[in-house]
Amino acid sequence: MRELQEKIRQEGIVLPNNVLKVDSFINHQMDPKLMKKIGEEFAKRFENEGITKILTIESSGIAPAIMTALEFDVPVVFARKRKPLTASDHLYCSSVYSYTKQETNEITVSKDYLLQSDTVLIIDDFLANGQAALGLIDLARQAGAKVAGVGIVIEKSFQEGADLITAKGFRLESLARIESLENGEVSFKTEECVSI
Amino acid sequence: MRELQEKIRQEGIVLPNNVLKVDSFINHQMDPKLMKKIGEEFAKRFENEGITKILTIESSGIAPAIMTALEFDVPVVFARKRKPLTASDHLYCSSVYSYTKQETNEITVSKDYLLQSDTVLIIDDFLANGQAALGLIDLARQAGAKVAGVGIVIEKSFQEGADLITAKGFRLESLARIESLENGEVSFKTEECVSI
Repeated sequence: MRELQEKIRQEGIVLPNNVLKVDSFINHQMDPKLMKKIGEEFAKRFENEGITKILTIESSGIAPAIMTALEFDVPVVFARKRKPLTASDHLYCSSVYSYTKQETNEITVSKDYLLQSDTVLIIDDFLANGQAALGLIDLARQAGAKVAGVGIVIEKSFQEGADLITAKGFRLESLARIESLENGEVSFKTEECVSI
Repeated sequence: MRELQEKIRQEGIVLPNNVLKVDSFINHQMDPKLMKKIGEEFAKRFENEGITKILTIESSGIAPAIMTALEFDVPVVFARKRKPLTASDHLYCSSVYSYTKQETNEITVSKDYLLQSDTVLIIDDFLANGQAALGLIDLARQAGAKVAGVGIVIEKSFQEGADLITAKGFRLESLARIESLENGEVSFKTEECVSI
């Protein structure tokens, strides 16, 4: 997605340890028009999949997810990163390890909002090691729902997440695919450039 | 806002201790079309205020905030409920006590995204004791920004938050104002009913 790539080039900041800081427009401050276009792009890519629900994870997945849900006119559910105060067995739970934060979060979704009849599109802002996306897939599978695919705003293709997801047979659509952040520079995967 | 009131009547569940559960359409599963209308309504109510930025707090403030930001065509920033991993003095911080969770969160916003030149509209999903909204006002004031007002999706008018905010001279616009949850029933404030 050309506009996203341009924004990453203009405003993205490469930090040590392969960190790409995009918090001026994606995950702290957010550009609502860009988010709307991101939603439109996901809707286009998954338009014939019979999507009935968007599934994401708090917090920075929410903005691209709700814009995607708006296009499909289906509800969006966000998984929570900690269990609610009121103990409940009415939850699907999965464990997600964050390499960045070096901690394991229990992510949960109410059983009311993921149904066996659902065809779920999973949306998140970043894909690196793939743990969050795999956790969301796990939640959908616990519900017996069909997973139509995974839509990612920015994929760090040099980390293992993309391979893990596609190796399991899931369709993955990433709007910007980063091949390398070496020498402080953002390099996008070639096919992305060709498709512009 | 009529559609919101109807949805609360249809899907809201009154739990003990004055808890109103609206997680089927506001803060776990979300209805994107309703969120879009909520954004349009906030934009209408604050249209002549010269808003340059929407400020909210993760996680459930993000959806109404980005829809409001889309209408105004301005960026939205969400305050984080915990400090980032990388220590930084480049943050505005405020302490927010949650009566529901009985804990104090340090909320933060990067100094890059709240500016003295900003006219800020604060958006959140719920207003009860007002601590989150007051924390967001505090962040904006630390930046030297002007606060144009506070927009709330659901106000529990029988708790002190609304009075605290208006007593400080801030304009408060709540799209649904709940007078009471007694006997398991949702009663809206009269002026809301009249304006339908």
